[in-house]
Amino acid sequence: MKENKKRTDVNQLGEFGLIDHLTSAYECKNPSTLLGIGDDAAVLDFGGGPVFVTTDMLLEGIHFDLMYTPLKHLGYKSVVVNLSDICAMNAVPKQITVSIGISNRFSVEALEELYDGIYTACRNYNVDLVGGDTNSSNKGLVISITALGTAELDKITYRKGAKAGDVLCVTGDLGAAYLGLQILEREKQIWQSNPKVQPDLEDQTYLIGRQLKPEARTDMVSLFEKSKFVPTSMIDISDGLASEIKHLCNQSGTGALVEEAKVPLKDESQLMALKFKLDPITCALSGGEDYELLFTADLKDLPIIRTLPGIHIIGEMRPENEGVKLQTVNGNLHNIVAQGWRHQ
Amino acid sequence: MKENKKRTDVNQLGEFGLIDHLTSAYECKNPSTLLGIGDDAAVLDFGGGPVFVTTDMLLEGIHFDLMYTPLKHLGYKSVVVNLSDICAMNAVPKQITVSIGISNRFSVEALEELYDGIYTACRNYNVDLVGGDTNSSNKGLVISITALGTAELDKITYRKGAKAGDVLCVTGDLGAAYLGLQILEREKQIWQSNPKVQPDLEDQTYLIGRQLKPEARTDMVSLFEKSKFVPTSMIDISDGLASEIKHLCNQSGTGALVEEAKVPLKDESQLMALKFKLDPITCALSGGEDYELLFTADLKDLPIIRTLPGIHIIGEMRPENEGVKLQTVNGNLHNIVAQGWRHQ
Repeated sequence: MKENKKRTDVNQLGEFGLIDHLTSAYECKNPSTLLGIGDDAAVLDFGGGPVFVTTDMLLEGIHFDLMYTPLKHLGYKSVVVNLSDICAMNAVPKQITVSIGISNRFSVEALEELYDGIYTACRNYNVDLVGGDTNSSNKGLVISITALGTAELDKITYRKGAKAGDVLCVTGDLGAAYLGLQILEREKQIWQSNPKVQPDLEDQTYLIGRQLKPEARTDMVSLFEKSKFVPTSMIDISDGLASEIKHLCNQSGTGALVEEAKVPLKDESQLMALKFKLDPITCALSGGEDYELLFTADLKDLPIIRTLPGIHIIGEMRPENEGVKLQTVNGNLHNIVAQGWRHQ
Repeated sequence: MKENKKRTDVNQLGEFGLIDHLTSAYECKNPSTLLGIGDDAAVLDFGGGPVFVTTDMLLEGIHFDLMYTPLKHLGYKSVVVNLSDICAMNAVPKQITVSIGISNRFSVEALEELYDGIYTACRNYNVDLVGGDTNSSNKGLVISITALGTAELDKITYRKGAKAGDVLCVTGDLGAAYLGLQILEREKQIWQSNPKVQPDLEDQTYLIGRQLKPEARTDMVSLFEKSKFVPTSMIDISDGLASEIKHLCNQSGTGALVEEAKVPLKDESQLMALKFKLDPITCALSGGEDYELLFTADLKDLPIIRTLPGIHIIGEMRPENEGVKLQTVNGNLHNIVAQGWRHQ
């Protein structure tokens, strides 16, 4: 049947544009819904304090390549990417559900490996697997996970709470996951042209580990709790620093100034970026999949922040009209453009 | 790389066997997890009364065929199948999250139709869409929905609470969704061999509607509440009456006796079954996708049950050693075999 209806390609809108287009007119109505779409997780309240819900779907050939992703690692990572969204609300993950679609090329033993990774993550993060759904798929593997978590009401940290003058901080280091992916992709290309060649992973276990087996920063949420520190805003860095800073600024109504020299990159990331002829700062800004936390802190909390391990102050929030800028090591100012992380 | 590992085909275990195999050794550890895998929904408690969580994934070519499934109906049904699982706990659905994977053959307008159906279901059932994830897929459409709901603690109805002597009841009527599917599949075959032939749906709007646009029985949960009635056990009929009775019996440690003459089938279902040379009772027992509620009631509640509209008493629970039997209209006894609903 031929239809003459208007046809707009989804790529015209992009992922964020598409979600916004499909959901922006929608209003939540239940009193138990405190916050719906628009942050790292939804916030619900069933009478016993806030409950956080987030969900992520991972598709074979889009989010992962089984040629170089061991199923156990994939199971682990699928859980972690969801827990990271709960952490980004300054909350503690408690439960997950796991739905999978599998084609018949997967054996029971392969699924055992996948679930081994899922259970390992559950143990490491003290999270319960409470439900799920197992289905046939015509092609490929699909994993859809939903995570739930809790926090005290006065600990909830949204994307929207930053204000001009707040310091901008990031946990851990950036760019490594993207560079790990570059190594894996390079070796896949070489192997595909000559299957006799053994992969040369150059002992880059750190970079490759950051890609294949990331961790969620529940340790940071605990550290904040112990230090009696509550960020003014927070987001997890899954799509690259640039895109996440933009989200914080958009939702908080602020600008930001990031100092290139302060953006944490490990030596091996710097060296590998140069080897791939990539700009290290671009890997940190737009590489993605680092699953670190980007947050802002009120100036009064600066003395606390300074004593906490693993946290880097990379800049400050500015008035909205100053824009979102990067000050390079040479002192030049550039607009930060959110390229995000394109899977295709 | 050639591996000599053992390889067990997933079809050897079947869907239920596979879930059981992958999850049976797992134990939940968080105090906020009251019940994990094994019922229609998990039961959690974050301090404000029980919270229910369930999830279902629908894959193109497995659970739906876009050749005869309008996207608006698909969106609606995707929500309903999840809400039905919340109802089966005697709980009220409150929120959903929706993740989708879409190939680039879907236009923005097609997704608007899908979400139109999702939002229509949200409005009809007073449920909030609170989160989700939109992804590219290499092929086909994947929809993964998680639903949350609430109930008072003394209203929770598990699969495991039935006891010998309880009456066995079902809401609505059975078999229609399966027969609607047979009509749609027949017309698809005809159309594929000759695209000029117009589909002949025989004005079977009821049967086709039951397949394409089912409803979740939130009305029954309200009716129970108003009548101060709490079932002793309950499950939703998504996989066919036979398989669901088996679940209730297995988890409750009982047998059951079902009277064929009492199983509710509409006249149009009976007639269409005969037209397709199918046994009507087999359509009710093993057709699936009726999304009605199967529940048991203590004998003391029989007077209440008898006054409620839309409920059919189809048999009674028996001691476990008597097995799960169907008494035919001729008075013969047959073992009920759970074929369930095989998507492939």
